[in-house]
Amino acid sequence: MDNQYSCSSRKAVVVYSGGMDSFTVLHHVRALGYNAAAISFNYGQRHSRELECAAKVSAGLGIEHKIVDLSSIAGIFGDSALTSTGTDVPEGNYGTENMKQTVVPNRNMVMLSLAVSYALSKKADVVFYGAHAGDHVLYPDCRPEFVEAINGVTRLCDWQPVKVEAPWLHASKADILRRGLAMELDYSDTWTCYNGRKHSCGRCSACLERLQAFAANQACDPLIYEDQAPI
Amino acid sequence: MDNQYSCSSRKAVVVYSGGMDSFTVLHHVRALGYNAAAISFNYGQRHSRELECAAKVSAGLGIEHKIVDLSSIAGIFGDSALTSTGTDVPEGNYGTENMKQTVVPNRNMVMLSLAVSYALSKKADVVFYGAHAGDHVLYPDCRPEFVEAINGVTRLCDWQPVKVEAPWLHASKADILRRGLAMELDYSDTWTCYNGRKHSCGRCSACLERLQAFAANQACDPLIYEDQAPI
Repeated sequence: MDNQYSCSSRKAVVVYSGGMDSFTVLHHVRALGYNAAAISFNYGQRHSRELECAAKVSAGLGIEHKIVDLSSIAGIFGDSALTSTGTDVPEGNYGTENMKQTVVPNRNMVMLSLAVSYALSKKADVVFYGAHAGDHVLYPDCRPEFVEAINGVTRLCDWQPVKVEAPWLHASKADILRRGLAMELDYSDTWTCYNGRKHSCGRCSACLERLQAFAANQACDPLIYEDQAPI
Repeated sequence: MDNQYSCSSRKAVVVYSGGMDSFTVLHHVRALGYNAAAISFNYGQRHSRELECAAKVSAGLGIEHKIVDLSSIAGIFGDSALTSTGTDVPEGNYGTENMKQTVVPNRNMVMLSLAVSYALSKKADVVFYGAHAGDHVLYPDCRPEFVEAINGVTRLCDWQPVKVEAPWLHASKADILRRGLAMELDYSDTWTCYNGRKHSCGRCSACLERLQAFAANQACDPLIYEDQAPI
């Protein structure tokens, strides 16, 4: 447990998508003793499976959970495979050129801005989000320099400064899962697949990365897959 | 005209509230030769008079104008006299303690984030907004250090950097009006009053500041006031 995040019943806001990284952040923050509230965003995603997981887990933990509906302004982000139903979700590993379709321009700045507003309204002085090292190549708003720059703003945007913490910034997805498994977390109520069908597809890059993380930890993913690709 | 903003038919996004500062920014940006699109925000303001002005002016200019509806998430900002209908708008000059009620936490970071997303979707590389020197004492997110910090983020938030410009950052409201009058702008289609009645009240701090700016320019405000307070 990192001492830098130690606290005693301080309030924190966690950006919680319902995926496994932010699910682990949420539990990590609670384990540190924070009084955590969760915030999720509906920005016109193809499906609501992640948000349903976030709502279920938050209710189970008895924590406040705000879902911010940005769907009416999804058009502002331009076209992205994650927000447009007219584009097929690309398959294969991250890092291939077609995965750039999944980048929603400036998504993290928008979400963190709103999370900071929420934190200010709740008198919380820290916002956590789940950017991790595997995101850096594809997502400019998950890089360490972005997190540092955001903190430059959130120090100044109100008379009360707010800190933005990304505890997994230098961790891989396998590292994050290792932390979660050490906390004995159950990943049944997390959703990763870019598709929103009954079961995870097992073929999109998100599924492949998740399956690789479980394999690296010699652990079994509790989710059912349509087609569990060899890894 | 500042050379630093010179351009030739580059695209720009202007954060346009419908008030006199952003109205003047919009015309300034167009005078510099930018192909400007306007973006306004409905964040649960007490009234829509400013937004109506913004829509009317944009239509008259034949420019694209997007109104982003944040009203469903206005609660995230906490209580503010500008978003709560249960609180009276404070009267008197800015700078008195009760005017802090008008601060919406982190409003500019949220609006600029969305304006940057919009700019990215339109392949515009600059966003203008109307923060001015008179705002610095009351609004932390109108200070020069905030604008500098925001640029630290918008340089990094996407692979395509976006610049945030606040051309009135060191200008007073009277200075801005002087610029606008020099451009022969007609301020009939701008709204400043915190109240949204048929005519401006002439008593709230926004009206007083506007009237002082016109007086400083020895110009006549085309708006009608319920009660034009002595200045």
